[in-house]
Amino acid sequence: MAATIEFYWDAVSPYTYLASTQIDAVAARHGARVQWKPVLLGGVFEASGNKPPISVPAKGKYMGRDLKQWAAHYGIPFAFPKNFPASSLAAQRVACALPEAQVGAWAQATMNAYWGRGDDISQPDTLKALAAGLGLDGDALLAQTQDPAIKERLKQNTAEAVERGAFGAPTFFIGKIMFWGNDRFALIEEHLARSAT
Amino acid sequence: MAATIEFYWDAVSPYTYLASTQIDAVAARHGARVQWKPVLLGGVFEASGNKPPISVPAKGKYMGRDLKQWAAHYGIPFAFPKNFPASSLAAQRVACALPEAQVGAWAQATMNAYWGRGDDISQPDTLKALAAGLGLDGDALLAQTQDPAIKERLKQNTAEAVERGAFGAPTFFIGKIMFWGNDRFALIEEHLARSAT
Repeated sequence: MAATIEFYWDAVSPYTYLASTQIDAVAARHGARVQWKPVLLGGVFEASGNKPPISVPAKGKYMGRDLKQWAAHYGIPFAFPKNFPASSLAAQRVACALPEAQVGAWAQATMNAYWGRGDDISQPDTLKALAAGLGLDGDALLAQTQDPAIKERLKQNTAEAVERGAFGAPTFFIGKIMFWGNDRFALIEEHLARSAT
Repeated sequence: MAATIEFYWDAVSPYTYLASTQIDAVAARHGARVQWKPVLLGGVFEASGNKPPISVPAKGKYMGRDLKQWAAHYGIPFAFPKNFPASSLAAQRVACALPEAQVGAWAQATMNAYWGRGDDISQPDTLKALAAGLGLDGDALLAQTQDPAIKERLKQNTAEAVERGAFGAPTFFIGKIMFWGNDRFALIEEHLARSAT
């Protein structure tokens, strides 16, 4: 049976953007599928007691260059957004409103916009344009972000991630094994290769 | 001119142990030399406002498995020491007392002992045995750990690392460019390859 990589993501996280540009190729190399699970990183931090990297000034400064180096390594665009951290609440709720098969495309569209081009994903117009680009009805999706069931789904995903051990993003699960960070693909691939034999 | 990789290390750090097992091969692939700079990680944390990973319970739990996965990936021994965090003060001061050409061997000996075998490097007898294994006079070196000039050198190395932007370990510098973590070798190698052209 093909392995599933569960990918807990929040578009506000730059390291999640980096990982989102690689995950399809990683999965393809091992015949695995990716299950995209939207969360709110702020909720993960709050529940786990972890803090964002920028809360340590030296770490925040390092992160700025580190992200650019990773983007160059991957050969992908990178633009640190003027609005950071922007609220990703609506973007993450839209993800909860979509059928599962469309969540990955939405995740990548929002992160490519926010981290690849610096677009402000807290703005409804930005999200509507992204939806239109995917052939989706942005007005209907934004209306759904006020649906209590959708709000609850995002909270549940976040609580689920924390309960399973997450404290940051990106967080991946293959079965019960958790991997944290854009810098764990070597271990993820080794695990997938070993599991396949 | 051959590039120099400055490697700020403290034997108490498990990710520094992981990196210490790879750095010679990384340097050799690019004709670079490694300059080992002993610091006290506790001092780096204190000055930068960063905290050890185990201060977030979920991160500490993850770290236990993550370290084993890295060790398997590298094919190196790993034994989480019973005494953790042990004081590495004497081990780091010994490093400051050694001629520069011997610091790397001492760093690797102490980390192989602490993280490869779980030996308690806070104990003078452990350090004496490690010194003997390297053909060094352990009694003389331990006596030097009380020398005010040696104590000061360790403080200065630590302050220098923080001043340059360090907030954790392992921290590497190639010229002014800082790299943090055992998981940055791909970026380090890319930087070395680019600098060589």
